[in-house]
Amino acid sequence: MYIALDGMGGDYAPLCNIKGAIEFASETKIGVYLVGKKDILLQEIKKHNLSIEGLPIEIVDAPETIQMHESPSVALRKKRNSSMHIAGKLVREGKAQAFVSAGNTGAAMSIGKFVIGAAEGIERPGIAVAFPNKKGSRTVLIDVGANVDSRPRHLLYFAVMGHTYVKEILGTSDNPKIGILSIGEEEGKGNELVKDTYPLLKMTKLNFIGNAEGRDIFTGDFDVIVCDGFVGNVVLKTAESLGMIILEMIKEEVNKSLVSRIGAALMLPALKRFKKKADFTEYGGAPLLGTKGTCIITHGRADERAIKNALKFASEFVNHDFNTKLLENINNLIPPELLKSREEEFSGAFNGQ
Amino acid sequence: MYIALDGMGGDYAPLCNIKGAIEFASETKIGVYLVGKKDILLQEIKKHNLSIEGLPIEIVDAPETIQMHESPSVALRKKRNSSMHIAGKLVREGKAQAFVSAGNTGAAMSIGKFVIGAAEGIERPGIAVAFPNKKGSRTVLIDVGANVDSRPRHLLYFAVMGHTYVKEILGTSDNPKIGILSIGEEEGKGNELVKDTYPLLKMTKLNFIGNAEGRDIFTGDFDVIVCDGFVGNVVLKTAESLGMIILEMIKEEVNKSLVSRIGAALMLPALKRFKKKADFTEYGGAPLLGTKGTCIITHGRADERAIKNALKFASEFVNHDFNTKLLENINNLIPPELLKSREEEFSGAFNGQ
Repeated sequence: MYIALDGMGGDYAPLCNIKGAIEFASETKIGVYLVGKKDILLQEIKKHNLSIEGLPIEIVDAPETIQMHESPSVALRKKRNSSMHIAGKLVREGKAQAFVSAGNTGAAMSIGKFVIGAAEGIERPGIAVAFPNKKGSRTVLIDVGANVDSRPRHLLYFAVMGHTYVKEILGTSDNPKIGILSIGEEEGKGNELVKDTYPLLKMTKLNFIGNAEGRDIFTGDFDVIVCDGFVGNVVLKTAESLGMIILEMIKEEVNKSLVSRIGAALMLPALKRFKKKADFTEYGGAPLLGTKGTCIITHGRADERAIKNALKFASEFVNHDFNTKLLENINNLIPPELLKSREEEFSGAFNGQ
Repeated sequence: MYIALDGMGGDYAPLCNIKGAIEFASETKIGVYLVGKKDILLQEIKKHNLSIEGLPIEIVDAPETIQMHESPSVALRKKRNSSMHIAGKLVREGKAQAFVSAGNTGAAMSIGKFVIGAAEGIERPGIAVAFPNKKGSRTVLIDVGANVDSRPRHLLYFAVMGHTYVKEILGTSDNPKIGILSIGEEEGKGNELVKDTYPLLKMTKLNFIGNAEGRDIFTGDFDVIVCDGFVGNVVLKTAESLGMIILEMIKEEVNKSLVSRIGAALMLPALKRFKKKADFTEYGGAPLLGTKGTCIITHGRADERAIKNALKFASEFVNHDFNTKLLENINNLIPPELLKSREEEFSGAFNGQ
């Protein structure tokens, strides 16, 4: 197995990317293509007394780099020699089985969708995020931004992707409880997309239990909640931001008195444990499910441990043969009449975009 | 001025509703129609040694009550003699200037939209919630659930409603910064609705500063963020739930050690201050903007203080002549060519629903 790592993506690249790759390759003996500006990568390795000798790490030169503010089209069309684009191509060509990037999320998503491409049986890949929930388990929200203006059939496929992710990778349920994000519990509540998707989900062999509300992302009553990528992305960014702001507001209040400050000092270990639990980005990153190879997009703040975790996470998808399982699930869980209509509808979907 | 209070709506009704009305009327001398089962209301007043004598409170009999689980259509069509429906009618008939309910939110919204009805110049009322933000001010999100599948023109009107709310009622800005909720900062990012609304907002005299992301609900960079009610409702419920769950998780972690518990005890006053700051429902409730009278929907958990706050909040809209200002703003801030096309588009919108 080889994983193509975008060596230049992320706030702490390339040093943390190099270190993460070295730790990962030493521990697992799994191969890593470290993609980036070759001279800079070699220079950093030397400067920090690191070594890749004897490790299954191969440096692949990529003269360009995608900046955080650049648009996906730059990554796709203008900078075809960027670390991200070349890492994606290694997967498309079958030289690597997985792609990992901590760079520009929008660009990485486009590389996954258009350079690596959709897996067999899938029209639109979807990004999944596993939120920690009240029951100590995780709730997967899919899609959190790979698509906007999704159609009912896309949500149907997101549900199967989420099911497969929970069952094969997270291992938190054998028969994941699936919901669709809406604004009321009862069938019939929601917007047009929800009303049109609900009957399709009911037709599948998925463990579909109905509408989920915003609060259900954290209740633990659902293992997977599907939604359009616009809504999912807004929810993800709201939740990330609110989590941080609550901690900041608590800090501010605490600083107002000495007694509170002493209290906070005593609480520190508990707060740290909590922060770790609540950090959605602790879990190696978010997989873009439904691409030809594994595609993991991790946070820009990724340090060496996060890069190592992302590489490990990617290797699990390969080890569990995720895409084969996904295709099996599509064929087993979606009734044939819905599978058949695929081609016609999708030509319509792309015209209508 | 008279405010029609749903006397039977909310977890602590009717006692807290009665107490809230008494405190409000004593303090402000503003009239309250206390609507509900007359015998029960009188009985409660007697039982708790309360008195409405000499206060501008009038009990209006309503033999039916809307339960929390009942659908909006029950409130609208089946139980026309419910406290909520009759309170709404008092506003429609001009006997009261404002409506306040802590009951079933969906039902109260329908009473606002269809019994009280849209204000002059408005096709679709929208619910606004004022989130506390990082800059110590508030950010208004509108619509958080009065409509789904909104069209660009609806969002345009929500923007003017939000502008008027911030300027006239919250008083946090003279020239509110308006944004549209999307999944990227740059113009051109978003779903179809956002892309179609953006140019309309640019044509207005509003202080429109572009796309806002989920995180911007809390950054304080925007005074008003407009969105479709489906997205807004999901965001609101996610945020409310996450806030509570973070506090619970902190509590759980803290309980794991004695030292942490001592720390927490010392931090308690700070945590309480924080909780108050972060409680979106502290602010009297959420106004359904754009109805003929003022319409305030407050939380089901409303106690007597919250009911009193909701009544005060409602009276501010009346005192500031909110609907007149709103109509002025519509005519002054929206260019005439967009106002003109209203009728045609709306016949289309309602057919398409």
